[in-house]
Amino acid sequence: MPLLVQKYGGTSVGDPERIRAVADHVARTRRGGSEVVVVVSAMGRSTDDLLRLASEVSTSQPPRELDMLLTAGERISMALVCMALSGLGVEAVSFTGSQAGIITDSTHTKAKIVEVRGDRLREALGAGKVPVVAGFQGVSTERDVTTLGRGGSDTTAVALAAVLGASACEIYTDVPGVFSADPRVVPEARRIGRLSFEEMLDIAASGGRVLALRSVEFARNHHVPLHVRSSFTWEPGTWVQEEDPSMEQAVVTAVTHDVSEAKVTVARVPDRPGIAARLFRALAEAHVNVDTIVQNTSVEGTTDISFTVPRDDLALSMEVARGLAPELGSGEVTSDSAIAKVSLVGAGMRSNPGVSATMFEVLASEGVNIEMISTSSIRISCVVREDAVERAVRALHEAFDLER
Amino acid sequence: MPLLVQKYGGTSVGDPERIRAVADHVARTRRGGSEVVVVVSAMGRSTDDLLRLASEVSTSQPPRELDMLLTAGERISMALVCMALSGLGVEAVSFTGSQAGIITDSTHTKAKIVEVRGDRLREALGAGKVPVVAGFQGVSTERDVTTLGRGGSDTTAVALAAVLGASACEIYTDVPGVFSADPRVVPEARRIGRLSFEEMLDIAASGGRVLALRSVEFARNHHVPLHVRSSFTWEPGTWVQEEDPSMEQAVVTAVTHDVSEAKVTVARVPDRPGIAARLFRALAEAHVNVDTIVQNTSVEGTTDISFTVPRDDLALSMEVARGLAPELGSGEVTSDSAIAKVSLVGAGMRSNPGVSATMFEVLASEGVNIEMISTSSIRISCVVREDAVERAVRALHEAFDLER
Repeated sequence: MPLLVQKYGGTSVGDPERIRAVADHVARTRRGGSEVVVVVSAMGRSTDDLLRLASEVSTSQPPRELDMLLTAGERISMALVCMALSGLGVEAVSFTGSQAGIITDSTHTKAKIVEVRGDRLREALGAGKVPVVAGFQGVSTERDVTTLGRGGSDTTAVALAAVLGASACEIYTDVPGVFSADPRVVPEARRIGRLSFEEMLDIAASGGRVLALRSVEFARNHHVPLHVRSSFTWEPGTWVQEEDPSMEQAVVTAVTHDVSEAKVTVARVPDRPGIAARLFRALAEAHVNVDTIVQNTSVEGTTDISFTVPRDDLALSMEVARGLAPELGSGEVTSDSAIAKVSLVGAGMRSNPGVSATMFEVLASEGVNIEMISTSSIRISCVVREDAVERAVRALHEAFDLER
Repeated sequence: MPLLVQKYGGTSVGDPERIRAVADHVARTRRGGSEVVVVVSAMGRSTDDLLRLASEVSTSQPPRELDMLLTAGERISMALVCMALSGLGVEAVSFTGSQAGIITDSTHTKAKIVEVRGDRLREALGAGKVPVVAGFQGVSTERDVTTLGRGGSDTTAVALAAVLGASACEIYTDVPGVFSADPRVVPEARRIGRLSFEEMLDIAASGGRVLALRSVEFARNHHVPLHVRSSFTWEPGTWVQEEDPSMEQAVVTAVTHDVSEAKVTVARVPDRPGIAARLFRALAEAHVNVDTIVQNTSVEGTTDISFTVPRDDLALSMEVARGLAPELGSGEVTSDSAIAKVSLVGAGMRSNPGVSATMFEVLASEGVNIEMISTSSIRISCVVREDAVERAVRALHEAFDLER
């Protein structure tokens, strides 16, 4: 019998009615002839509620205790999903991350999976039961409760699909799939039926919010086909899987944008070997997730280095860069939060070198100034003013004819 | 350094402010020169909230999943208590029942502790940290999450105090201790400074709500002194410990009452050996907790058997008794929910045989009719009409001079 891992996000289990709808869909999937392993997130806004409670109690929140607190959320949703399944006559058994054998390192609040022991899940499947697993959580090699950080439940689902040899991992969410642009910005945006892992990675990295980067990487590395779809319509959504070399690729698949970053510029950096390495090593050690980096050819022995970071990390990044300035012999360190990034993603770009030129022309004709550019083999990203980004997205979506 | 186990009930950790007050008290206790292990219940009404959520999801609530659901509650409160302690500069570590080594049998929703492995707690204490343990929960020998049923957090605290060799187990609650009668019924009721385990057992068994019977039994069997006190006033409360044979005992220590039971009467039971055994074995197998049993001398070869059961178990008890009636050859089975039990408890009763006579006289002078009587060596209980019970309690409290 084929095995499906079905992951349900917070909105999909947001209230008793939604939970019953999820149970109903799981029961149907089983009647359709598949074994099912369910992975659930915490209900709706319950994680936010717990965080607010914690901040009312204390400003001191040791990461180990934060993990203990937050893992209460999935415990509730998975028990409720099991009860709903039981009400439909489907025997279900809930498993915490620890019980499901999700072993992680000890980096609380953003632990990495080091091993998945699926024996209790296999046992439950063998007994004809539906295992319902808490997403987002694991147990460390020190026997402490850990959480996997952002997108953690998707990662749990993909890891279980890989270990259990599932035919696919279905990611149920509140949108019908991955779109050619954010439908709130481009009403004509269409659902993409199929994407390669590489395209999905670049979409996730450049602002697409549907899947977390990390879970897509995991799926690609373990060859787990993903199916992103809606738990509200239950319609087929977007498949993310290995590239099919026999098919011609669309040149551009999606326009993405991201307004969550800020830009830091370190002026007049001496053009000597090792300077950039020193700066970005220090940022990495401070756990700042640096995205785009741009360094120009030097003029008169110095250059300006600009990079983007999540706005939440801006203060920390400034502190690190300013602290290093004397050692580096660099000039002023400035920041700019009013930026945004707009990107084109498409596997067909590899064999179509004119895409970037077209992109720059479209932005120019809209009067959108480009502040930074970075490219990968299947993506082009431009940093622009934040207040221009939606105009840029709409113009690019239309210019590359993505609504058909 | 002496070790104290401090257990905080739901109202004691009911909101962020209460949680900070608890942390403050724990920190003071440490500064006072004691090691502390904290045991917490779920916050305030959170267990009720979870149960309501479950009933909105499904009428089918497998006990294993109910346990998984309810144990989310302590997870939240213990993480928050650790954060509050951390905010005061006290290093604290939370432990689930499983992590604390509370091993139980597999009877979900009312598991029994079969073993306590305190090694992680000892390790934390050795490292100068305060272990904060989830009350009410454990892990079964089948590796499933279990709960200990009513009074479970008290039982957790007493079990840990026994295993860790604590000098006492402090039970913090929202009342200042054990009273000579329910202060809502008898405003003159006074706090009792000291009780023997036996007296506390009889008080708990006859309606005193402050401590669950089971945790008192556990404390007596393991010689753990209990100190029941308020987390609102932090004043000394009621000590419950071994009887001190050198002291003269009060004849009557407390008047208790209980309105949570109902009476079942099986009429015209044939007076043959084995009949009562058959009836009460069947009730035990249905997990009905039978309290008082009264059987009168038979008249003309038959007798009436009456017994009291928790009102929640009344329907089940009636079903069992009626189902057995043909086999037993008994007559009608009737029930009465409008009853209440009033009891006198006191270790000094053993050497004061006149107490029951006085009790019956006091009730008679108040016009309170006695429907059933049962006695132990240190307790006398009378079943009366529910609407007469508060009058009975006040009259007895005054007659036995308990307000001094």
